[in-house]
Amino acid sequence: MTAAEVPADVPVLRIALLGCGSVGSQVARLLREQAGDLAVRTGTRLELAGIAVRRPAHPRDEGIDRSLLTGDAMGLATRPDIDIVVEVIGGIEPARSLLLAAMKAGKSVVTANKALLADKGEQIHGASREHGTDLYYEAAVAGAIPLLRPLRESLAGDTVHRVLGIVNGTTNYILDRMDSSGAGFTEALEEAQAMGYAEADPTADVEGFDAAAKAAILAGLAFHTEVTAVDVHREGITDVTTADMASARALGCVVKLLAICERADGGVAVRVHPAMIPRSHPLAAVGGAYNAVFVEAESAGRLMFYGAGAGGTPTASAVLGDIVAVARNRQAGTHGPDATTYAGLPVMAMGQTLTRYHVSLDVADRPGVLAVVADAFARHGVSIRAARQETRGDDAQLVIVTHQARDADLAATIGELESLNVVRAVASVMRVEGEEDPS
Amino acid sequence: MTAAEVPADVPVLRIALLGCGSVGSQVARLLREQAGDLAVRTGTRLELAGIAVRRPAHPRDEGIDRSLLTGDAMGLATRPDIDIVVEVIGGIEPARSLLLAAMKAGKSVVTANKALLADKGEQIHGASREHGTDLYYEAAVAGAIPLLRPLRESLAGDTVHRVLGIVNGTTNYILDRMDSSGAGFTEALEEAQAMGYAEADPTADVEGFDAAAKAAILAGLAFHTEVTAVDVHREGITDVTTADMASARALGCVVKLLAICERADGGVAVRVHPAMIPRSHPLAAVGGAYNAVFVEAESAGRLMFYGAGAGGTPTASAVLGDIVAVARNRQAGTHGPDATTYAGLPVMAMGQTLTRYHVSLDVADRPGVLAVVADAFARHGVSIRAARQETRGDDAQLVIVTHQARDADLAATIGELESLNVVRAVASVMRVEGEEDPS
Repeated sequence: MTAAEVPADVPVLRIALLGCGSVGSQVARLLREQAGDLAVRTGTRLELAGIAVRRPAHPRDEGIDRSLLTGDAMGLATRPDIDIVVEVIGGIEPARSLLLAAMKAGKSVVTANKALLADKGEQIHGASREHGTDLYYEAAVAGAIPLLRPLRESLAGDTVHRVLGIVNGTTNYILDRMDSSGAGFTEALEEAQAMGYAEADPTADVEGFDAAAKAAILAGLAFHTEVTAVDVHREGITDVTTADMASARALGCVVKLLAICERADGGVAVRVHPAMIPRSHPLAAVGGAYNAVFVEAESAGRLMFYGAGAGGTPTASAVLGDIVAVARNRQAGTHGPDATTYAGLPVMAMGQTLTRYHVSLDVADRPGVLAVVADAFARHGVSIRAARQETRGDDAQLVIVTHQARDADLAATIGELESLNVVRAVASVMRVEGEEDPS
Repeated sequence: MTAAEVPADVPVLRIALLGCGSVGSQVARLLREQAGDLAVRTGTRLELAGIAVRRPAHPRDEGIDRSLLTGDAMGLATRPDIDIVVEVIGGIEPARSLLLAAMKAGKSVVTANKALLADKGEQIHGASREHGTDLYYEAAVAGAIPLLRPLRESLAGDTVHRVLGIVNGTTNYILDRMDSSGAGFTEALEEAQAMGYAEADPTADVEGFDAAAKAAILAGLAFHTEVTAVDVHREGITDVTTADMASARALGCVVKLLAICERADGGVAVRVHPAMIPRSHPLAAVGGAYNAVFVEAESAGRLMFYGAGAGGTPTASAVLGDIVAVARNRQAGTHGPDATTYAGLPVMAMGQTLTRYHVSLDVADRPGVLAVVADAFARHGVSIRAARQETRGDDAQLVIVTHQARDADLAATIGELESLNVVRAVASVMRVEGEEDPS
């Protein structure tokens, strides 16, 4: 059934599309090609009524109706005949002003804009509450993976303890290559760039900014608390070495860049950093440019959601799912559940967060070294879970895995180790996640 | 915040709980313990107003308010003060009559009853449509995994091509043990029984009845088509041998009992059978009693949902998520999206379904055997993708993997192979799933 076959007597909902790049052009295509199905599923005819682009005269896919193009995004977003505004421009401005104006004018909003939600989430959610309009953003985190809806709806009767996510495909591809081919970071990055998985300027991905924005959004939904990107402790993967990869392998682990959101004593902890996880963990098998998010909930137990984290068509699929939800809500004269922030929990500093370290040291091969090193850990209140020493010629390698401790105490321990005479070099330091701490 | 702390002025929704076993008692506990959170999330006070059980005088968990117990399930399900009926009895009757009566009386319904939905889905969905009442059943398939909501909502703007699921934890545990320990089926079953993963009468699990019911429900949601359990082609795991497991290992595969729902030419194909899948497939890593469902959609691409497939508390979490959705709908004076069956696609016979076989034959070790065997495949129009022959003393083993072909043609080929002089025995026959067919 095409648009032409949709019964003429169903109510019409008119959509303004802001942005027509890789995602927007696919949204336009799906609205056109799936028109009949969408009409059955929503009880409405979803009509694309305008497309705002920076350069209306620019060449477009042949499926795009050029008569819909306009350079006046604000005019379109607030036009009286528009019911739903779909924003796929990205970035803070002009997206922020456009969506605030759209909600003020009573439009329902669907957006894929993670930066906006992570940086200005409070303002955007506030406008949605104030004007009683829908605000859906499934596509903002982990592309096509239906994740936000389960978090805010299916688990609404449960309590989430922890979210562990691989939410950046570029870094996952690079770490995967480093693991499988033994390549160093620079080499793997170049390969990712050649394959089109990394951008010419890879900063947003490899320094963890993209993952941190997603972590902020996930934490907000999981814990009903306002979290912004600047609240997120962030470490990228540029310092991950082949020695780290080898250490992980020796421990039966892989290295992943994780977005971690945790309920902790009286607050929430949100952080992005590379970490070792056991190969038996469901996240360990998530390879290439795929994304996955692992959720630990009080009653539901361990859940994982896996899928394509990016790409125009998968992201457009998530946008369409949101458009359908919004259309159904408008038909019913209601709006979806508010992503409430009623819990208002404080965001804890990284130093207060409980983590676990894997440390590999090059040490002098002589008696008493382990005692000196162990004492450094003990003085900072860090308990050692396992220690293993291997001799190689005059040198020895000492590998230590700790129990959980305050990250600040672990970091201070590393600082002290670096100053010890018996320690020739701290070869590798990495946090360990995804296993039970048997302490 | 406990129930006592819920503000007195919020509207009350009264819940009737039908059944108070392992799931029901956890639903009662969560309603009590999460009362404050649930009030914030729904804007209502969710009050457990009655619990129907077979034996009201039977001992119960101490958290259960005995004054709520009644032996009159029908009276409770239709009582005028009840808003939401939650059914966790299981089985066809009396659950069917109770839910039909409840919907007729305008109650919203949440159920975890897979058998009822798989056998009488048309009648139950029909009643929901006729009376305009909510019908939610997230807990009926794959326990706590938020799966039905993504299928019917998040992917509402997409087209599902294929669903591949590990939806029965008992058989997954047994196959996992056979793979990891080399145990035979009987031994692994006994171990599963000793661990409490399999029941004394394991028929419903090991013969695939449980998985077939879930496949019917999944297919209905994925393809908007009425599918009942009897429409599902069903093969259990009792015939899976250690030779099959060894064949799978040699091929870089594992054996899983899969529920498979596919769009095929002009219809849908729904089946449950053991199959080899590559170890690199995301489903291959799903071990023990976990469940996972892999979805291939037109735009979203490959998605997977993973989690606990059973257990009182995880299942209760899914029931609570549905109760929250229903409560929000009632507050908004609307009801959720209908699990529409507008597509009305025919269910195809197994023989018409396209599958791929892995066949291991004990053959005479003499020239011309491969030619004779290959000719048998060719006569049934089955194309061979790979053949490998290994000599062992006087015997040889011939392993063949086919391209996709009609299942009936593949089965007929096996019949013919069994009659060939050069074939001493058909050692193992198993379908192969989860890889692209490069034909």
